[in-house]
Amino acid sequence: MTDRVFTADLAAHFGQEVLLRGWVQRLRETKSTTFIVLKDASGTVQVVADPQKTKPLGLKTEDCVEVVGRPRAEARARQGYEVDLVDVRLLAAAAEGLPFTSMSKLDDVGPEVQLDYRPMTLRTDRGGTVFRVQAALIEGFRAALRRRRFTEIFSSKIVGGGTEGGTNLFEIKYFERSAYLAQSPQFYKEHGVAGLERVFETGHVYRAEPHATSRHLTEYYSLDLEMGFVDGPEDVMQLEREVLSEVFEEVRTRFGDPVPGFDSYLPSLMEVPAWEFGECLERLRSAHGREDLVDDLDPEAERQLCALAEKETGVSAVFVVGFPLANRPFYTHPRGAAGAAQSFDLLFRGLEITTGGQRLHRRADLEEALRGRGIEPSSFEAHLRMFDLGMPPHGGLAIGAERLTGQVLGLKNVREATLYPRDRHRVEP
Amino acid sequence: MTDRVFTADLAAHFGQEVLLRGWVQRLRETKSTTFIVLKDASGTVQVVADPQKTKPLGLKTEDCVEVVGRPRAEARARQGYEVDLVDVRLLAAAAEGLPFTSMSKLDDVGPEVQLDYRPMTLRTDRGGTVFRVQAALIEGFRAALRRRRFTEIFSSKIVGGGTEGGTNLFEIKYFERSAYLAQSPQFYKEHGVAGLERVFETGHVYRAEPHATSRHLTEYYSLDLEMGFVDGPEDVMQLEREVLSEVFEEVRTRFGDPVPGFDSYLPSLMEVPAWEFGECLERLRSAHGREDLVDDLDPEAERQLCALAEKETGVSAVFVVGFPLANRPFYTHPRGAAGAAQSFDLLFRGLEITTGGQRLHRRADLEEALRGRGIEPSSFEAHLRMFDLGMPPHGGLAIGAERLTGQVLGLKNVREATLYPRDRHRVEP
Repeated sequence: MTDRVFTADLAAHFGQEVLLRGWVQRLRETKSTTFIVLKDASGTVQVVADPQKTKPLGLKTEDCVEVVGRPRAEARARQGYEVDLVDVRLLAAAAEGLPFTSMSKLDDVGPEVQLDYRPMTLRTDRGGTVFRVQAALIEGFRAALRRRRFTEIFSSKIVGGGTEGGTNLFEIKYFERSAYLAQSPQFYKEHGVAGLERVFETGHVYRAEPHATSRHLTEYYSLDLEMGFVDGPEDVMQLEREVLSEVFEEVRTRFGDPVPGFDSYLPSLMEVPAWEFGECLERLRSAHGREDLVDDLDPEAERQLCALAEKETGVSAVFVVGFPLANRPFYTHPRGAAGAAQSFDLLFRGLEITTGGQRLHRRADLEEALRGRGIEPSSFEAHLRMFDLGMPPHGGLAIGAERLTGQVLGLKNVREATLYPRDRHRVEP
Repeated sequence: MTDRVFTADLAAHFGQEVLLRGWVQRLRETKSTTFIVLKDASGTVQVVADPQKTKPLGLKTEDCVEVVGRPRAEARARQGYEVDLVDVRLLAAAAEGLPFTSMSKLDDVGPEVQLDYRPMTLRTDRGGTVFRVQAALIEGFRAALRRRRFTEIFSSKIVGGGTEGGTNLFEIKYFERSAYLAQSPQFYKEHGVAGLERVFETGHVYRAEPHATSRHLTEYYSLDLEMGFVDGPEDVMQLEREVLSEVFEEVRTRFGDPVPGFDSYLPSLMEVPAWEFGECLERLRSAHGREDLVDDLDPEAERQLCALAEKETGVSAVFVVGFPLANRPFYTHPRGAAGAAQSFDLLFRGLEITTGGQRLHRRADLEEALRGRGIEPSSFEAHLRMFDLGMPPHGGLAIGAERLTGQVLGLKNVREATLYPRDRHRVEP
């Protein structure tokens, strides 16, 4: 027997006998013919069979089968071909009475059931597409940065302390002592800049936040970059415009625009404006009468600002730059002398998907910032000494991969874009 | 002023005035001329200056500078060009009296000092190459699998229990309960197979192993794959031959062979043999008189087997297949009826770098295997129910990225290939 062939590659095998393997996605039996839609990693194909060959197996949907058959052109088929069955063998039967199948409409399946049976969610067109698009977004991020001389790094998630003051950390019992799960690779990517100038990392980060909203997880996948020799956060924002525009273009090419079955959004971000924080408050006051915002935005403001940006530029996205310094981590670089920070968020389709900025790069400035928060610099010595080694002015950003996927595909809850979401209540499966 | 240009791209700018930024890697001042070797993310270039322009800055090595200059062809330079300095500015000074510099020979720097000042390690040619090669190996693994219709997944590292029985797990304080750091994405990649047929994941895994040897870490980066519809572990081994051969070829192309400065080893693995476990014991007995091995190999045996394979095939690598089932995790598929497992290791250059195999795919078999170990199957229900959904015969493998990097480059300790190693004693920086 020849090697197994993927259903997507059958056009090259017309008239030959090929070996196919996959799931029975649909099954229809008439007196004279059995029709099987066979699904594998590459797609689906309809297999046409003599019922005498299929009936004895008692096939049902979601069973795993091996089919020997002959592909032939078939103009009415979506793929342009069908397969005439020569032989079929049951490889592994699915159980009876599954809670849903790969043909179910996921909207009709409760979110908890989808999570409890994740493989079946993935086997649906919709579920499979969510995670394939997510993989493409993440790989696209990496590839765009490699093209710009960034080196991928892999930093430890077990840390001796927090990067942002020690709240919301998960504690690990680490032999005879305590350690913590990293909230961010912030320090490590800054070290990476001191060594390699441009670095990125894609990996999990952890926040022990007790709230369970549609946009929060205790463990999420962070797309991080950090670059040396910047003039300011504008360099980082411009890089993000370019990187996300390239990534979105690749997703459009591979998956279509809109992505079939989704209210997807994959615009060019090259013209996304950057609005100062104060200007944002002013716009919200004048357009929506909002007088309640003082030192931060809220989810409603994020939606309103995206709508205002869309009205002006045609794209529902805006950078907000110059947040109040007081709320930002100690390593944040000031923006001018009026208490603003060289920090920005990217709001995309109504949701913050990125936080970034320029960081302090002089040891003395970091020590002063720590003291200003009542922290003794010596407790950060293992980090601060890296700033003795010749640390260029630098900045970077972090994109939440699940949020990015959710906003790109128009998902209602970040959990739809998380294989196994973790929140206060869920650590299984 | 124009945008900043990388030193590697200067050949396109001869005669123009360009802006360069980077570190002063070498500095030599004569009466008439100052020579600066400037290092950035792309490489190095020699800058030639009038001392009157450089002296007032008090430059020293490892300082961050900005140079305005004119590149011109220079046959004696390794890059084929030099830069005549027009202006120079200090961006950030390095401290005085650094423990080592980017020109230091790392062999002369203690391993602990290298870790305490990781950025400087990365800024040396040797240190930078280790982590650039590591990034290339990991990206090569992903790319080779994407070409074969694998989908990248991102699974949770916070789990309710262990995949292999509950020993060597790090415990996390997770709100009001306990959770654990995942030892492996094994269960999740099997779920991935049930949904997407072919999946891979690259991410950290955790082992609370108290020993600190040259080859063990408590946190390492695992290159995992799992594929459905296999006939046996031979399919997985053949995939690994192909994937690693492709990855090695790419590293050879990008970095050279040998990688300059390293005792590197990047052979084609297409002809790597697979020896049965019993056959391995027999070979070790007859070649080395070893009578002490019964149900597993030891580090010495791994080195001896690679040497034996090299004598026969010319390549220092061998798959060992059919380990005793009793020592393997409960989900391991038996190999025949004589107590062997469909499990394999890949030994490469004297060290095990991969464990893989075929897994049980029928729920009843998994339940029986659990009971055989005195474990009540109901405690694995959240996992076992995935096997109701139509689970094909499947197998996979996991490669330790630090070990792979170490063996490829001929490093003595896996810590050299780990940005921030974690072991019983080290959680900082």
